[in-house]
Amino acid sequence: MLDIKFEKTTAPKQKPIDESKLGFGQIFSDHMFLMDYDNGEWHDPRIVPFQDLCYSPGTAVFHYGCEIFEGLKAYRTAAGNVQLFRPIDNVRRMNDSAERLCLPQMNEDDMLQAIIEFTKVEADWVPHSEGTSLYLRPFLLGIDETLGVHTIKKAQFIIIGSPSGSYYPEGINPVKIMIETEDVRAVRGGTGYAKCGGNYAASTRAGHKAELKGYSQVLWLDGVEQKYIEEVGAMNVMFKIDGVVVTPKLIGSILPGITRRSCIELLKDKGIPVEERRISAEELFDALRAGKLEEAWGTGTAAVVSPIGELSFNGEKYTINDFKIGETTQWLYDTLTGMQWGKIADNKGWIVPVK
Amino acid sequence: MLDIKFEKTTAPKQKPIDESKLGFGQIFSDHMFLMDYDNGEWHDPRIVPFQDLCYSPGTAVFHYGCEIFEGLKAYRTAAGNVQLFRPIDNVRRMNDSAERLCLPQMNEDDMLQAIIEFTKVEADWVPHSEGTSLYLRPFLLGIDETLGVHTIKKAQFIIIGSPSGSYYPEGINPVKIMIETEDVRAVRGGTGYAKCGGNYAASTRAGHKAELKGYSQVLWLDGVEQKYIEEVGAMNVMFKIDGVVVTPKLIGSILPGITRRSCIELLKDKGIPVEERRISAEELFDALRAGKLEEAWGTGTAAVVSPIGELSFNGEKYTINDFKIGETTQWLYDTLTGMQWGKIADNKGWIVPVK
Repeated sequence: MLDIKFEKTTAPKQKPIDESKLGFGQIFSDHMFLMDYDNGEWHDPRIVPFQDLCYSPGTAVFHYGCEIFEGLKAYRTAAGNVQLFRPIDNVRRMNDSAERLCLPQMNEDDMLQAIIEFTKVEADWVPHSEGTSLYLRPFLLGIDETLGVHTIKKAQFIIIGSPSGSYYPEGINPVKIMIETEDVRAVRGGTGYAKCGGNYAASTRAGHKAELKGYSQVLWLDGVEQKYIEEVGAMNVMFKIDGVVVTPKLIGSILPGITRRSCIELLKDKGIPVEERRISAEELFDALRAGKLEEAWGTGTAAVVSPIGELSFNGEKYTINDFKIGETTQWLYDTLTGMQWGKIADNKGWIVPVK
Repeated sequence: MLDIKFEKTTAPKQKPIDESKLGFGQIFSDHMFLMDYDNGEWHDPRIVPFQDLCYSPGTAVFHYGCEIFEGLKAYRTAAGNVQLFRPIDNVRRMNDSAERLCLPQMNEDDMLQAIIEFTKVEADWVPHSEGTSLYLRPFLLGIDETLGVHTIKKAQFIIIGSPSGSYYPEGINPVKIMIETEDVRAVRGGTGYAKCGGNYAASTRAGHKAELKGYSQVLWLDGVEQKYIEEVGAMNVMFKIDGVVVTPKLIGSILPGITRRSCIELLKDKGIPVEERRISAEELFDALRAGKLEEAWGTGTAAVVSPIGELSFNGEKYTINDFKIGETTQWLYDTLTGMQWGKIADNKGWIVPVK
């Protein structure tokens, strides 16, 4: 149990009035959670006014990518309560990321407590409009002040909050996706399954190229054979082929998404078969040409689900489900957002009420 | 041509008196170079007192690994002059790294000027003892203040200097290296050839495991087949097999080292054949068992060359050249350090005098 010190801001910011203009990750709430690690121990958990992080220019995080993070949302229900969705899964994944990068792990209960206490303090920052939320960003930085490359001995764990707008302010619409055939995001044995900075740095160029060509995101192929489908942008990806939902198996190069896991559980509960396995681009397009690819969608915390309406591969364009959101995609979206915003009862034990 | 503003420190630090205790990257000189990028332009080049970097906790560099760097040394000659070794190669590689990570590139002449001017200002910080140098660390950070993942629009370019000790205070000694068979550092299509934070973050765990087993570094295998040799720790690697120097070819996953390039040029000048090609661990151990592996060494800015005396692979240990530094390794070390510290005339145009 952490003994969290609280220093309340003396200069509270004005909360955004027009919640339709929140955007994503651009406005920050009044406080931040901080905890320090050195000499093998986490200490000094505290919630303080939101402020700059100041480190020597010789600090590891500026040079060696020793940074991991999580992303989750605090949702406001119609009754005005605030709740989280499966936060313990974020806690566990954060520790898995730490292990891969040789960064210090944390006690699970402590990290969960920090997330919940911080959300309580910032509860008034959880916006009220349909589809909005307070995005929570726990992150961990290696801050040894040396240019020597070695295992981190000093770290800081931080949580910030950002009131964020609806992902679909104009309604849920399918997106166009380009299959990336040059850049590789991750490979088994690498850091693909960790939520670490380097994965995002490796993805930017391909995402930028796709954007210039009018696509929302890239679909990543595996790093070994550049043949099997892995992820879409920073989301997991699912396909409904001939009544069966197929999604790439977690083999170390793919992020173990919490929305991905939730979708799989919901689908199985409903009796829709799910296969976690390797799926090649070739198999996908064979199914498409045979009229068997019924739906395709990405899954992630930000969008919940994002229907894919068009896939481009080596210059060829393929339309999926007449560029309309499919029945299963819509059902997953309605069910998950229903639970998250408290419109549908949680019979899975996924919701953690905060206040 | 940059118009560099100079704000001299009013509180100069005491320079290290005992140069045998400098270590690496732990002490920093009095000033730092800074330049800002936004609205598509680099501006405000300045040398200011060494000070903390302060950014909002929502800044991209803390989350998405948008950080690249270079490393080079300023050497003091016996006559007291200060000189750099092939700095234009660092400048060009920095721009290549920027391109891969979608970070803003810089005018080559400007970056070179910044390095040289900064070295001039800090010339008194270049230590005097045998094998010591002022290590220069140019680095570039993406500093957009948003959690949205996108191409960087705001960046900062920084140079810091750190007086560093001799890499071999007790004389040049061979090291023990373990071939890593689980973790993967990089894969073609990824960021292996860029000097970016994420590559180092991906390498830490294996390096740590090797250290615990008594090895100095790991030897990385390729990410595709986990069969071909790539790098040793953060250095390039070379083998002398039956009179021929073999070094892994640059295929996108390997850092294009400046010491690597210099060694290849010097060896070819001397008439020693050099092959840049794929070399499998199997081929290497076949050569070793046949008595044809004459020498093995790593190359990098920090160590110049680092002889490998023992290789461990899947639990088997193999000694190279009776755990002694080889003739070619020694010659490369003597020639390169001779040029760098001004004991040998530079007939290659590699040395850039600073002061």
